[in-house]
Amino acid sequence: MSDESADELLAATHRALCRHGYADLTLRHIAAESDRSKATIHYHYHGKDELFVAFLDYLYERYTEAARAVDGTPGREQLRSLLELVLDDGAHAGPGFATALLEVRAQAPYDETVRNHLRRFDEFLVERLEAVIEDGTERGEFDDAVDPGRAAERLATLIEGARARGAVADERYRVVEEYVERELLSAEGARFGEAGR
Amino acid sequence: MSDESADELLAATHRALCRHGYADLTLRHIAAESDRSKATIHYHYHGKDELFVAFLDYLYERYTEAARAVDGTPGREQLRSLLELVLDDGAHAGPGFATALLEVRAQAPYDETVRNHLRRFDEFLVERLEAVIEDGTERGEFDDAVDPGRAAERLATLIEGARARGAVADERYRVVEEYVERELLSAEGARFGEAGR
Repeated sequence: MSDESADELLAATHRALCRHGYADLTLRHIAAESDRSKATIHYHYHGKDELFVAFLDYLYERYTEAARAVDGTPGREQLRSLLELVLDDGAHAGPGFATALLEVRAQAPYDETVRNHLRRFDEFLVERLEAVIEDGTERGEFDDAVDPGRAAERLATLIEGARARGAVADERYRVVEEYVERELLSAEGARFGEAGR
Repeated sequence: MSDESADELLAATHRALCRHGYADLTLRHIAAESDRSKATIHYHYHGKDELFVAFLDYLYERYTEAARAVDGTPGREQLRSLLELVLDDGAHAGPGFATALLEVRAQAPYDETVRNHLRRFDEFLVERLEAVIEDGTERGEFDDAVDPGRAAERLATLIEGARARGAVADERYRVVEEYVERELLSAEGARFGEAGR
């Protein structure tokens, strides 16, 4: 299968997942969203599980691509864009991305492969946050008493915690904004949220 | 059924849940852990779902009882005891408590009743944390520039976030300890963890 065909099939998996949820995701449903037959899909992937692993890689690629492409001049603006992307569960990465991620997360307690994939998302996010905070600290936008690695861990923990406690995207943003304004911005910093929201 | 019998049956549900997990939890398994027949259990509860809701209440009672009974003089010591209880997923509340809570959490994405129960756990924790922090602030142990309600929310979010990111109990403790030492303790405060760990 060419890369292009493979991508088309993973996009079909994405649509099928959003429409039916993981529990009712079948190769038949995926075939219905694509121009392949169920038999063709079966020829390339030995069943739903193998296809789902390929789909997790595809989701990761889209997520990291979107996170690398966030706008804004380096520093505070870039941090805000990155946080908006993450707090919306990657909604900026395209329609249905948040729904797909929700379905994937719900599988995590039952599936080590899914947990390992989510760990990659998490590690990527912490690294990206750290780089953006480091950059902003060098530019004097963030308090240089703050350790970028530690701040990145704290932010990732707050984001996941707000999500786990059932906060919707807006509330998550408040939790994180409060941390950034109180602990991260240097004394001269303008309010964090005002330009964007 | 007397209160005592009901409690005995819920304790049997707890043992069965720890042994088999939620997916394989059946009235037969629960009967095997108790001195009741499956028919007797069925007479009192119209199936596994109804019994599980009663079990969630039972778990909540045990959790809140354990959280109210934490040791330590009011203020910092009490906060440490409360956090230790929560960070261990209530392991102090008795053997198997953490396992039961893990199984319950894994059901949350699929079950609104479970989500509502977990919300009660969360609200209770935030209230309890706020009361302990308020008390400690009045005693001068915590920085009085900190708002107790806000600090309680921040702590609850960090705890859930560390859990969601797959941190084991010790790492969760570090995340939370760092917050308490850096943001919460008044300047005169000794290190938070040193007495206990």
